[in-house]
Amino acid sequence: MIESVLHDVNYRSFASDNYSGVHPQILEALSRANGGHVSAYGADPYTHRFEEIIKGHFGEQAEVFTVFNGTGANVTALQAMLPRWGAVICTTNSHIHVDEGGAPEKVGGFKLLPIETPDGKLTPEFIDKEAWGWGDEHRSQPLVVELTQSTEVGTLYTPDEIKAITDHAHSKGMKVYADGARLSNAAAALGLGFKEFTTDVGLDAISLGGTKNGLMFGESIVVLTPDAAPGLAYGRKFNMQLASKLRFASAQLIEMFGTDLWLRNAQQANAMAQKLSNAVVQLDGIELTQKTEANAVFAKINPAVADKVRENYAFYDWDLQNEEVRWMCSFDTTEEDINGFVECLKSALGGAPRS
Amino acid sequence: MIESVLHDVNYRSFASDNYSGVHPQILEALSRANGGHVSAYGADPYTHRFEEIIKGHFGEQAEVFTVFNGTGANVTALQAMLPRWGAVICTTNSHIHVDEGGAPEKVGGFKLLPIETPDGKLTPEFIDKEAWGWGDEHRSQPLVVELTQSTEVGTLYTPDEIKAITDHAHSKGMKVYADGARLSNAAAALGLGFKEFTTDVGLDAISLGGTKNGLMFGESIVVLTPDAAPGLAYGRKFNMQLASKLRFASAQLIEMFGTDLWLRNAQQANAMAQKLSNAVVQLDGIELTQKTEANAVFAKINPAVADKVRENYAFYDWDLQNEEVRWMCSFDTTEEDINGFVECLKSALGGAPRS
Amino acid sequence: MIESVLHDVNYRSFASDNYSGVHPQILEALSRANGGHVSAYGADPYTHRFEEIIKGHFGEQAEVFTVFNGTGANVTALQAMLPRWGAVICTTNSHIHVDEGGAPEKVGGFKLLPIETPDGKLTPEFIDKEAWGWGDEHRSQPLVVELTQSTEVGTLYTPDEIKAITDHAHSKGMKVYADGARLSNAAAALGLGFKEFTTDVGLDAISLGGTKNGLMFGESIVVLTPDAAPGLAYGRKFNMQLASKLRFASAQLIEMFGTDLWLRNAQQANAMAQKLSNAVVQLDGIELTQKTEANAVFAKINPAVADKVRENYAFYDWDLQNEEVRWMCSFDTTEEDINGFVECLKSALGGAPRS
Amino acid sequence: MIESVLHDVNYRSFASDNYSGVHPQILEALSRANGGHVSAYGADPYTHRFEEIIKGHFGEQAEVFTVFNGTGANVTALQAMLPRWGAVICTTNSHIHVDEGGAPEKVGGFKLLPIETPDGKLTPEFIDKEAWGWGDEHRSQPLVVELTQSTEVGTLYTPDEIKAITDHAHSKGMKVYADGARLSNAAAALGLGFKEFTTDVGLDAISLGGTKNGLMFGESIVVLTPDAAPGLAYGRKFNMQLASKLRFASAQLIEMFGTDLWLRNAQQANAMAQKLSNAVVQLDGIELTQKTEANAVFAKINPAVADKVRENYAFYDWDLQNEEVRWMCSFDTTEEDINGFVECLKSALGGAPRS
Repeated sequence: MIESVLHDVNYRSFASDNYSGVHPQILEALSRANGGHVSAYGADPYTHRFEEIIKGHFGEQAEVFTVFNGTGANVTALQAMLPRWGAVICTTNSHIHVDEGGAPEKVGGFKLLPIETPDGKLTPEFIDKEAWGWGDEHRSQPLVVELTQSTEVGTLYTPDEIKAITDHAHSKGMKVYADGARLSNAAAALGLGFKEFTTDVGLDAISLGGTKNGLMFGESIVVLTPDAAPGLAYGRKFNMQLASKLRFASAQLIEMFGTDLWLRNAQQANAMAQKLSNAVVQLDGIELTQKTEANAVFAKINPAVADKVRENYAFYDWDLQNEEVRWMCSFDTTEEDINGFVECLKSALGGAPRS
Repeated sequence: MIESVLHDVNYRSFASDNYSGVHPQILEALSRANGGHVSAYGADPYTHRFEEIIKGHFGEQAEVFTVFNGTGANVTALQAMLPRWGAVICTTNSHIHVDEGGAPEKVGGFKLLPIETPDGKLTPEFIDKEAWGWGDEHRSQPLVVELTQSTEVGTLYTPDEIKAITDHAHSKGMKVYADGARLSNAAAALGLGFKEFTTDVGLDAISLGGTKNGLMFGESIVVLTPDAAPGLAYGRKFNMQLASKLRFASAQLIEMFGTDLWLRNAQQANAMAQKLSNAVVQLDGIELTQKTEANAVFAKINPAVADKVRENYAFYDWDLQNEEVRWMCSFDTTEEDINGFVECLKSALGGAPRS
Repeated sequence: MIESVLHDVNYRSFASDNYSGVHPQILEALSRANGGHVSAYGADPYTHRFEEIIKGHFGEQAEVFTVFNGTGANVTALQAMLPRWGAVICTTNSHIHVDEGGAPEKVGGFKLLPIETPDGKLTPEFIDKEAWGWGDEHRSQPLVVELTQSTEVGTLYTPDEIKAITDHAHSKGMKVYADGARLSNAAAALGLGFKEFTTDVGLDAISLGGTKNGLMFGESIVVLTPDAAPGLAYGRKFNMQLASKLRFASAQLIEMFGTDLWLRNAQQANAMAQKLSNAVVQLDGIELTQKTEANAVFAKINPAVADKVRENYAFYDWDLQNEEVRWMCSFDTTEEDINGFVECLKSALGGAPRS
Repeated sequence: MIESVLHDVNYRSFASDNYSGVHPQILEALSRANGGHVSAYGADPYTHRFEEIIKGHFGEQAEVFTVFNGTGANVTALQAMLPRWGAVICTTNSHIHVDEGGAPEKVGGFKLLPIETPDGKLTPEFIDKEAWGWGDEHRSQPLVVELTQSTEVGTLYTPDEIKAITDHAHSKGMKVYADGARLSNAAAALGLGFKEFTTDVGLDAISLGGTKNGLMFGESIVVLTPDAAPGLAYGRKFNMQLASKLRFASAQLIEMFGTDLWLRNAQQANAMAQKLSNAVVQLDGIELTQKTEANAVFAKINPAVADKVRENYAFYDWDLQNEEVRWMCSFDTTEEDINGFVECLKSALGGAPRS
């Protein structure tokens, strides 16, 4: 053993919740799952145990397929929900449209029909902009509506809002999928169990994210409506998303969702975003651009000020033309981190040229 | 933390080297890489350090792209090595042909031209069965030769054998890729450094396997000939093989390939296969079907006897019609495991019906 | 021979220019190309002769690949112009986005980045909405700009407008392709030879449409910039667009583009659209929604009135929500057809409920 | 009109049945279908009439989708018959495996499982070499068996042989598709109506070829078992196989299959192949390599002799290593053509070096 620690274990940024590492409980779970031989590719007791946990959260009918990452979950699930002639209605902000390198089209083989929204949230009215043309072979058929919960811009769907969408979509013969990379943050923010704002309001399938909330890797596709996504076992394999040593993904997921770790981690990230948001609204020269409903803060800030802050804290521009930035909080973001960041903002704002 | 150990940590099988768990050094490496925030998607010090290690093994020109699993490595690399009209010459035994769920065709979009071989090894003569038809638009163009080192049937290419293939392929305008899911086993068996039987004998790109040799997850595509696989950074992403918390794959790989862990693990697996092979040739009623050159033993055995042995040890049929089975040894297979297994074989053979 | 004529040879509609049949000269050309045996798949004298004609129109460097239909031309050409990680900037009205059943994504494997425009025409400013993110593997890379000439809404790019787009695109490393399903109509409207508003203003490749202008079938991909679309011979075949008896497509194209038939047909269609447009602006209750620059008239009309007119003449709604319809003129539309249609419009408007 | 005839209308070759032109009745049918406006994309009276004719030939349940060419028919049909995880069992000689440029894999997205056969004909025993592994996600699932009637090597399946295959395939949950590029030749050779050796013996879908038998273009997918190929209307469009002026394909097909033209043409081609075959068996230095059962003759001949013959008649090597050539007869091959060719063979054999 020759390697030592190569990074600064005290550094925190606001760039992304996947800049963070792994919760210590997860590392311990990995250690417990080690040793001996178990069947590969999911025929192991950890994967079976996790299947039971999922049924506990989402209902007895729920089926789970764990994959490597969020893009893998979204593309594999949506592909399985669609016939070859299908298309997906989503927002122009959606991760599948802007952050997956074209995997939906190139690997999934399906077209996206993106709709511009002010807050990253679809509504029946927005959906209707692209919900038409069934039976016309010249039109890629809109057969799935995809929403993200919590959204890419840090906002939240209420259960009623989701219900309105699923009712509308189902009445037109479309299924509804939720990208749940941050579903735990949504649950924590809503103060609800998973089932209450997924299965119970008509979602047909979701991804259940773990990586952004403290896992090392591992996202799960959860099929809520029986037969909503046929052939997923095959699709996971041919989409190259089936881990040989799957027990180590499942062991992490057991620890996350078989305890309240998912909730504690999400609550912490959400609370820190709220604390940051509350501080920011007090500051001249910064303006929130979205409601802070989960673990992200979106704000308009002079780019020169932003660059000054970046000397100490990494974060991303969201919309450079509108001087909009994104600050993500993570499960391991602390009050001290927020205090330090706000001080840094204040200091940068003090010396900034007027925008 | 509510979960306990769900599996028998003392159970060993001969089913697959990915039934095994993770080497303890790897778990420690994961722990050291934890904490703090680092850039996601590979812009982290662990990934950079691993890039240097790869150059140490394969030469300064080598470039590495780490992905999730072996299928992801093979399909992503081969796709990048081919124009859209390309095809791959391989063996009928090859993992890409029989074990990847059609991912080469469905995701990679390329045709396979499989060739039957007695020992899983291509030669220039075998290759020529499909190496023709360039310029004819009706024929999917054979532009990459794919071999597996060590092979799916436990055999080994010598450096000279690889050189003969790469010389032949290059003379016809084809590149050569090696599926190196067990490249460490090959290196250990050959008693050579990686470079001597890859870069130095003309391979254009390889996969470097870790999972079967004691990692939790993580396989690397290594491009040995500059520009042999353009656009791999994009291909890895749109093929859904880019881990957000890539540092944890890289940290494992550093521990594996920055120390001699890869060699010790492979030597152990190979030695145990050899021990098993040596014992088996002494037994009436079992016949080796392939040379034991790496960590696998292939044998013909009466199915009723095989089933008796399976009461204690899992393993796979390889070719049921020919009563051929496969016994894989792993980095954690011990002498006691072999002894126990051989005893079990003997006992089953004693009571078997005559075949 | 038992069949007789099954349709009304005097019926004319304004639904689409592909509702029309085939110009008589084309039928005669087919007859002349018949008899005897010639090489299949394009190695025939008709295809070679057409290649020379194309060079005459577009310059000596031009290469032509004839395919079956417009969707085949667009998808095959755009795919060849892109690496696997590429995306295409186009308008939300573009045929590739709305009328090709998802072929660009499903067969071409590329993402579309559609931009809303008032008149179906891109500009450098519009293009910049999606022209960003090169080098970021998370973003499908915008590497081709696609425009349609004349556009799907009957408007026209001037050579200067195209030049502004190609200069802009090239400066950012993007190529430019024009869907020329109605390129002849554009040439006729501009009063220019093909080269002056394609090759000479920087377009890298185009489709050259024939079917809508009086052919039976047959569209050609013309590559104007050498090496802009590598591997097209292969792409045409694997995209199932290579006719075995290609001589019969080439013979049609020779007759169309080796004489002035393309021009006469396009001039007729354009003139009839202009005549209709001029008549329509005189009518109360109809409002043009686009300039009439080629062979299409777009207008806002009360749906009840429209339905009354449809009792005699077929045509399509373009945007039902905005009460917008499309009236297409064809190479065989006559002055009498226009007069009859205008009379029908007047009569329907007279008795219409007020909108 | 400036073009004249560019080819030798008296030249005949034995290279391929698609070197021939179009039967005169077909040209007349095209002329009759011309003029006036009809709906595009198949909503026209010619297409509807052809649908009735197909039901007459194949049964009331039969549904037809006309496409441009044979590759388009095969790939579009097979794709529709398969889920995304499906594979196709075929012969190593099959057109889909060797002559479609990888379209099955690249566009269809399905894997081929080719099996070597002596005469281009599958049997239940051959099929069983690849008919296994259902339910195993690592194996691309064999769900369709594909045969060619008449075969690529000029042989013929009897109805009983097809029935044996369909019974076997159906008993294992697989469907059966026949590439019928030369189905008329098969019908003529068998002396049966289409239904007797397709629908009545369990085929689930076929292609019905026209181009090789005297059409200009146009092949039809015929679905014989209801629901065997869902979504074909969409698949035809997104696979870029839907002609806008479909009436002109349908008019040809009406003339071909609504009269006995298909039979007369096929009988002529078959008879000429038989005549050639009978002559060839009399010649020293040539050896038939396949039975002559349809319109092709396969023979072993010294390459130097073959080249001498090629000075007057084009034809293809089939298997250069085995000195095997293919001679195809066409609907317009005459007795004089055969006599001339045989004389040429004799003369070349006379002066050939001994093989």
